Amino acid sequence: MTAPRAAILSVGDELVLGTTLDTNSRTLSLALRDIGLDVVEHRTVADDRGAIAAALRDLAARSAVVVSTGGLGPTDDDLTRDALNDVIDGGAAQVEDPVARADLEAWFAGRGRAMAAINLRQALRPRSARIVRNPGGTAPGLAATVGACRVFCLPGPPREMIPMLESDVLPAVRPAGAPAIAKRTVGTFGIGESALAEMLGTRMARGREPAVGTTASGSVVSVQVVARGADAARRVAAEAAECRAAVRPYDFGEEDDTLASALLAECRARGRTLVVAESCTGGLVGGMLTAVAGSSDVFAGGWITYSNEMKSREVGVDAALLAAHGAVSAEVALAMAAGACRASGAGVSIAITGIAGPGGAVPGKPVGTVWIAVHDAAAGGGRARRFEFPGPRDIIRDRAAKTALQLARWMLRGEDASIIWERA
Amino acid sequence: MTAPRAAILSVGDELVLGTTLDTNSRTLSLALRDIGLDVVEHRTVADDRGAIAAALRDLAARSAVVVSTGGLGPTDDDLTRDALNDVIDGGAAQVEDPVARADLEAWFAGRGRAMAAINLRQALRPRSARIVRNPGGTAPGLAATVGACRVFCLPGPPREMIPMLESDVLPAVRPAGAPAIAKRTVGTFGIGESALAEMLGTRMARGREPAVGTTASGSVVSVQVVARGADAARRVAAEAAECRAAVRPYDFGEEDDTLASALLAECRARGRTLVVAESCTGGLVGGMLTAVAGSSDVFAGGWITYSNEMKSREVGVDAALLAAHGAVSAEVALAMAAGACRASGAGVSIAITGIAGPGGAVPGKPVGTVWIAVHDAAAGGGRARRFEFPGPRDIIRDRAAKTALQLARWMLRGEDASIIWERA
Repeated sequence: MTAPRAAILSVGDELVLGTTLDTNSRTLSLALRDIGLDVVEHRTVADDRGAIAAALRDLAARSAVVVSTGGLGPTDDDLTRDALNDVIDGGAAQVEDPVARADLEAWFAGRGRAMAAINLRQALRPRSARIVRNPGGTAPGLAATVGACRVFCLPGPPREMIPMLESDVLPAVRPAGAPAIAKRTVGTFGIGESALAEMLGTRMARGREPAVGTTASGSVVSVQVVARGADAARRVAAEAAECRAAVRPYDFGEEDDTLASALLAECRARGRTLVVAESCTGGLVGGMLTAVAGSSDVFAGGWITYSNEMKSREVGVDAALLAAHGAVSAEVALAMAAGACRASGAGVSIAITGIAGPGGAVPGKPVGTVWIAVHDAAAGGGRARRFEFPGPRDIIRDRAAKTALQLARWMLRGEDASIIWERA
Repeated sequence: MTAPRAAILSVGDELVLGTTLDTNSRTLSLALRDIGLDVVEHRTVADDRGAIAAALRDLAARSAVVVSTGGLGPTDDDLTRDALNDVIDGGAAQVEDPVARADLEAWFAGRGRAMAAINLRQALRPRSARIVRNPGGTAPGLAATVGACRVFCLPGPPREMIPMLESDVLPAVRPAGAPAIAKRTVGTFGIGESALAEMLGTRMARGREPAVGTTASGSVVSVQVVARGADAARRVAAEAAECRAAVRPYDFGEEDDTLASALLAECRARGRTLVVAESCTGGLVGGMLTAVAGSSDVFAGGWITYSNEMKSREVGVDAALLAAHGAVSAEVALAMAAGACRASGAGVSIAITGIAGPGGAVPGKPVGTVWIAVHDAAAGGGRARRFEFPGPRDIIRDRAAKTALQLARWMLRGEDASIIWERA
């Protein structure tokens, strides 16, 4: 049995013009593939009614399923609904859908806002289409058939599109009798993708079952484990556990775990509280920690000691230390971390001071030089390590923040390893 | 004169499967648009000879220029060259190109590596095509004509593709006397896309020149202005200025400006320093401000006062105030902001306290309730405003941080307006 073919259409001037990077097509590909469809094409066209209609016709003629995103908003340049109407109803007058109308009114009423007249357009649908309700926004989706092809038009914003995809589209197009698929993702940090592949060894061989692969995003290298067929859930869990053992201590968690949630869990398990003192990252570590719901039982807060004055006054870094070694030094990182524990009474602290660039380099301290210290109040001491993070400012800062979370996690667990960007 | 049409083809199983995110299409769109071509479509197909050939034929029939990326490597699943050969030479035997052969040998010799026999395949070209030399890798590109369309096939890795695009493709396809295209992006925050469209009114009418459209990303709604033809640069600047006037004070900047860079510029222009005291955003505002290179002349840092103890000890919020009103209150937001200025000596402070969820709601304070205060030390006072941000935890926090930046900017400029999520 061959898998039914699927195609993905993205609609938007901002996409063909390059102003916005399309990520929906990738999201849709992964989701449709997971349920057993064979994605054969992505296509992107402008906010042009004729071009959208032509693409829908062409893709529908060659696929069992077409999913489009974008062009369902309330403005004049949102033309996907009209284009679908041209294809399935010959451009006939559209009808107001009572459910869509009620959803729209409830959406605005729930927010205490008056609905602009322009939004009423979003309650229209082609006569032969049905509405796909959108709990996260004002643009309902549309479902229809074009010949033998099932077509779904979803809104462009991912946080609206993805829930509609999962609740409505995927259940509708999942092929009957497709083999069970179970997936598991192990997150690792601090090691490159090729070095991680070497640690995983023959587990990554092509054709092996379960399949093991790696992907990298935001400097986190993930191990993807996929099992198909009978007993897939048990086999994928066992394989993931063995992969974790093979790459320890770089593995920080599975599925939705982040470096921050993993560190918070280690603190929680040991009854330790955590604070931060951030210079070049300017709040990123605090932002990552507080992105985790329920972090307040462990994370007390901290200081953004961006200026030297803040470093001295708020966490007690001696001005003489700053003068002697510079703000980007082991001595200052250690003093920031010790001061943060002292001022807050927290059990563990993270301190970061570095040169995020593009300016600020000095001899011996190129852009990307960052000192990270972790202080353990129970042990009465800390350790600072030096890194040279490559990349532009945003990448340097992101890698510094994530490295700090991994180092604090290792300290609590009594683990240690080299980090790819470490330069003693 | 209308701009010549261009289309972009990406080739690769990893792209249609979603394993890899395609960024080449966006890069190509921006480059082709900048020289005056009208990019009308992106298409992505698998490593399938028939699918690649069909896409090349279809796109060439409707465009003056087609640029493909990917599928030029040495392995069995690199099929773009064969597909092009099918289209232009009917699948006839290909010829070895002496320049490509010499480049290949030089590439391997320069690295002290033996050339595998498989690489010789990369010196082949269709008889009717010419080679596009690749100084950064082993895969030469190909240039050919399909009917009236000029087709360029480039390798997939961006660091190989981009230099070939710039040195070879763009000079070849730049239209003589093409209408200049100028574009300008105005960023706005605090207003919904449909309300913004109403403020822009007939400026957004289709077919108008310059063209005005809107896009939304990360709660920032951008106004895109595109002018074509004589005097485009001047006209696009004038139109952008008029759009800004029409949507004031929601407009915070143009092109690469962010809410953070715009606020920093206002502080700099007035010689004011800035600090933050963040509770539910946990460092996000600091992170956004320090994402801007050179922010240290204005931004001193601040406090992540996640726990009530941090609020009291670090920025002097009276414990009685916390007990009487709760941490999420106008009184506490104002006290945090005043305390942050007092402790730091900064001229302006931002304070944020709220319920990011999913837990923590209390009667009268649903998830998403956030108080934001801006304190002006010169005026000796501050103002707190209440918001109910919809969405999940990360969206609530992101919107709260960006709203705070906009409110501080308005305070400095003496501007004011309602914010879409405000609930008195």
